[in-house]
Amino acid sequence: MSRAPNLVIIGGAEDKTGPCTILAEVVRRAGGRSARIAVIPAASELAETGADYATVFERLGAERVDILDVSSREHAHAPEHEDVVAAATAVFLTGGDQVRLMNRIGGTPLDRALHRRVEEGMVVAGTSAGAAVMSGTMIADGDADRVQANAVRTAPGLELLPGVVIDQHFAQRGRIGRLLAVVALYPHFLGVGIDEDTALLVRGHHARVLGRGSVTILDAGSATLNDATEVPPTARISLAGVTLHSLASGREFELMERRSLAPPAG
Amino acid sequence: MSRAPNLVIIGGAEDKTGPCTILAEVVRRAGGRSARIAVIPAASELAETGADYATVFERLGAERVDILDVSSREHAHAPEHEDVVAAATAVFLTGGDQVRLMNRIGGTPLDRALHRRVEEGMVVAGTSAGAAVMSGTMIADGDADRVQANAVRTAPGLELLPGVVIDQHFAQRGRIGRLLAVVALYPHFLGVGIDEDTALLVRGHHARVLGRGSVTILDAGSATLNDATEVPPTARISLAGVTLHSLASGREFELMERRSLAPPAG
Repeated sequence: MSRAPNLVIIGGAEDKTGPCTILAEVVRRAGGRSARIAVIPAASELAETGADYATVFERLGAERVDILDVSSREHAHAPEHEDVVAAATAVFLTGGDQVRLMNRIGGTPLDRALHRRVEEGMVVAGTSAGAAVMSGTMIADGDADRVQANAVRTAPGLELLPGVVIDQHFAQRGRIGRLLAVVALYPHFLGVGIDEDTALLVRGHHARVLGRGSVTILDAGSATLNDATEVPPTARISLAGVTLHSLASGREFELMERRSLAPPAG
Repeated sequence: MSRAPNLVIIGGAEDKTGPCTILAEVVRRAGGRSARIAVIPAASELAETGADYATVFERLGAERVDILDVSSREHAHAPEHEDVVAAATAVFLTGGDQVRLMNRIGGTPLDRALHRRVEEGMVVAGTSAGAAVMSGTMIADGDADRVQANAVRTAPGLELLPGVVIDQHFAQRGRIGRLLAVVALYPHFLGVGIDEDTALLVRGHHARVLGRGSVTILDAGSATLNDATEVPPTARISLAGVTLHSLASGREFELMERRSLAPPAG
């Protein structure tokens, strides 16, 4: 039987030199001193990305960190990667380009090993591009600031978390326009915009915010969209009555019920 | 008896060389061929700002355009300014710095002449800083991207339109964070974010969008704010259940009722 997803979805630019609140939470969820973390830098073209995270996770007390070489699809077929993921307590997906990440690992044995372990309850953490790929439909790219169908391009993601579309670097890059376009076109999704150095911690349908920024949740379920799909892709879409939640660290949200929970007492 | 406000509130960077949709609407509202427009460049430090608008308004067919020299408070006391405003069918407030604009004209005879004519139904149009000052409380400055009390500073405005706080260059500068902070602290105000080359045309409580971008309206009236005023000014404020409207050109909104109107049929 498959377990509820156990995800750490990070909006990018998380602290790696100070208290490392978010990356420490990744280690904690992965088992603390017995954490075995597989870093998958498939989204990145920078050779040092994997090693940089390995250094931080080791400093934060993980028992073991492996960096998987997935610099091409061929590399993603390496049988040793499957073994590493099979033994891992968490996988960490770095930033870079979410389309590159999907191109490199989608449908490979590594992808299957990842999904097998997710069903067994393994933690998956991802930042920036590694956050975007967690949903079934992801934002591939787009202009941040226009509520317009041709301002955003979507593509299939890893399908680790149903019912949402994630956007990252959210406030820093002023991306509410493109996320509004997504929920206007696909109102069955919650739009989840995560600021930098901020994470949404998800266990099943329950989510909690951690970090310095805010998580913005857009719910167009009750909105008047006036057939957004009939608006020409080059024209602005209007939405009336979208419900917006802007949640700071510690606040909790029920993704299935689409509602914010009261803050803890005191 | 005072008339309902007749305002053209522009989010900045409106077209001045192409079809000039928004500035042509200013001329139309001001009386078209009999329009007499007083340009008040008090927000600007650039000597050419007033003349640039005069050129456009004359090209668009206004009968007469006067540029008021309000480069200091002393200049704002010039009796001839009162005569110009008394005869004007519209006043146009340029961009620049909204605090400078208020410092230069607030409480002067020009300010009184302006309010007297507004009560008689004169059109007031303003762009950017000239848009910000239309409300009773305006955003003086602030960081765009943080939902935090110390990220935004408010100051008194011209009180031409009650019940709202206006933000401009809205999508282009990613300002939803600071506007959310304002409505969290002052939920009696609607937050009105206007994109560049976009205007909100207001007559009384009725508003209509015109231009290339969107107008974003934030209504925290039904939101759960958990005493935002008790959150330390350096901490993120959480808001749950804010109602958001993102309205494209042609869409209408009732400001008093806080609701979007159905789009025109067809």
